Amino acid sequence: MELWFTEKQTENFGITAKIKRTLHTEQTQFQKLDMVETEEFGNMLILDGMVMTTQKDEFVYHEMVAHVPLFTHPNPENVLVVGGGDGGVIREVLKHPSVKKATLVEIDGKVIEYSKQYLPEIAGKLEDSRVEVKVDDGFMHIAQSENEYDVIMVDSTEPVGPAVNLFTKGFYAGIAKALKEDGIFVAQTDNPWFKADLIRNVQRDVREIFPITRLYIANIPTYPSGMWTFTLGSKKYDPLAVSDERFHEIETKYYTKELHKACFVLPKFVADLTK
Amino acid sequence: MELWFTEKQTENFGITAKIKRTLHTEQTQFQKLDMVETEEFGNMLILDGMVMTTQKDEFVYHEMVAHVPLFTHPNPENVLVVGGGDGGVIREVLKHPSVKKATLVEIDGKVIEYSKQYLPEIAGKLEDSRVEVKVDDGFMHIAQSENEYDVIMVDSTEPVGPAVNLFTKGFYAGIAKALKEDGIFVAQTDNPWFKADLIRNVQRDVREIFPITRLYIANIPTYPSGMWTFTLGSKKYDPLAVSDERFHEIETKYYTKELHKACFVLPKFVADLTK
Repeated sequence: MELWFTEKQTENFGITAKIKRTLHTEQTQFQKLDMVETEEFGNMLILDGMVMTTQKDEFVYHEMVAHVPLFTHPNPENVLVVGGGDGGVIREVLKHPSVKKATLVEIDGKVIEYSKQYLPEIAGKLEDSRVEVKVDDGFMHIAQSENEYDVIMVDSTEPVGPAVNLFTKGFYAGIAKALKEDGIFVAQTDNPWFKADLIRNVQRDVREIFPITRLYIANIPTYPSGMWTFTLGSKKYDPLAVSDERFHEIETKYYTKELHKACFVLPKFVADLTK
Repeated sequence: MELWFTEKQTENFGITAKIKRTLHTEQTQFQKLDMVETEEFGNMLILDGMVMTTQKDEFVYHEMVAHVPLFTHPNPENVLVVGGGDGGVIREVLKHPSVKKATLVEIDGKVIEYSKQYLPEIAGKLEDSRVEVKVDDGFMHIAQSENEYDVIMVDSTEPVGPAVNLFTKGFYAGIAKALKEDGIFVAQTDNPWFKADLIRNVQRDVREIFPITRLYIANIPTYPSGMWTFTLGSKKYDPLAVSDERFHEIETKYYTKELHKACFVLPKFVADLTK
């Protein structure tokens, strides 16, 4: 018998991956959590039927969420990750020696638990002494923070289920308040092929709050369309104005200092969503 | 009953698309040809089980094959397209007013026939007076040409079936001979996630023949991994050295003059394939 996992990424299109075995399946307090071992992508974390991360391609998302804002900010010391319970963004954040503290606020403790068990090379750095892990509601955490963080990264699921509040203008206003006066935030904002309206709406909302609002892209094979977008809002520093000497050596598989700027050069139909 | 078409893009991974109906299916002299109407991507041309083009995302591939070399060459007049029987590359080539003649050499006349019938907005320009369509073996056509073309574009299927000869060093040497002394060629060279060896080998072969060899990328949702590569070989002109005044206005949905250079900025693991 062959087992295949299929994610319907839209009503009418999806990806399908051959499964060696199911490692864990559970209805948590917040969502359906599945961890499977695939032939092509290694272990794969699936939440509410949607691929969150895989061992083979996780580096793209995690590097691109973390390094673009962290190399844009001249001295990021205090970093917050909202969501991201698999720990991959935290792992990348810790590659920056300026970072003194990285806080992870993940609503679902089960995501952390099973990522540590089945995705150890992704989640392993959650044990680092600079990291504080809070199992809590990211929306509430943001609402209670003020003038505290240099960089905030929103590593959420899609705007269904527990993440629905994380795509609202009220949330972005809260982020602005939680950031210091020269803070930067970035959020994953889905793909331009099937979710153009979402990107357009987020760009509009963020632009009303942050003086510098930008969209950048990366290729993630297991995400819908393979092209993923990230919306960046910044109070002071422009990611396109980073000078060359700002970049220090870090080990990456996707991000480079050249890509730091090229990832903002958008295909025309994507650029049109930012206007 | 719901009908879904599934392409196994590797042994263990694929895409699946809901089908409204099958428009045509036929074993041609060279390959299995299917034309289906999908819910998500409109009409879709499938050869030997692999998606070739769809109405929704075809513009990416066709624009990126055509405009990168055509804006690199200062005065492309005589252009050859090998393969590409759907006519999409030809449509883009004809947007360049310098082009006096565009020759299409497609081995399988059935691809042309059913593209005209079911993909008219892609194939319609094959009737243009500047276009000559030859139903012939591209490998042989290249072997018989000398010092003739300004730009050659290889719009082939994967290196299985009729296209296997189009990924050989002998073919690239033939292309060099068929090009004028300042000619440029580009070929689609699959994706870096599942076909890294192919890209590395083509880069090595082309580099031994063309003084300027480059790799660029584009996002195509219906192709494996969503990230597609194109290998460009040039005798004289560097696509990265094109000056701004060279670009003239054309109507596109993906290509822009900024992307002309940014598409050569590769993720690290892809850049490593070119070394």
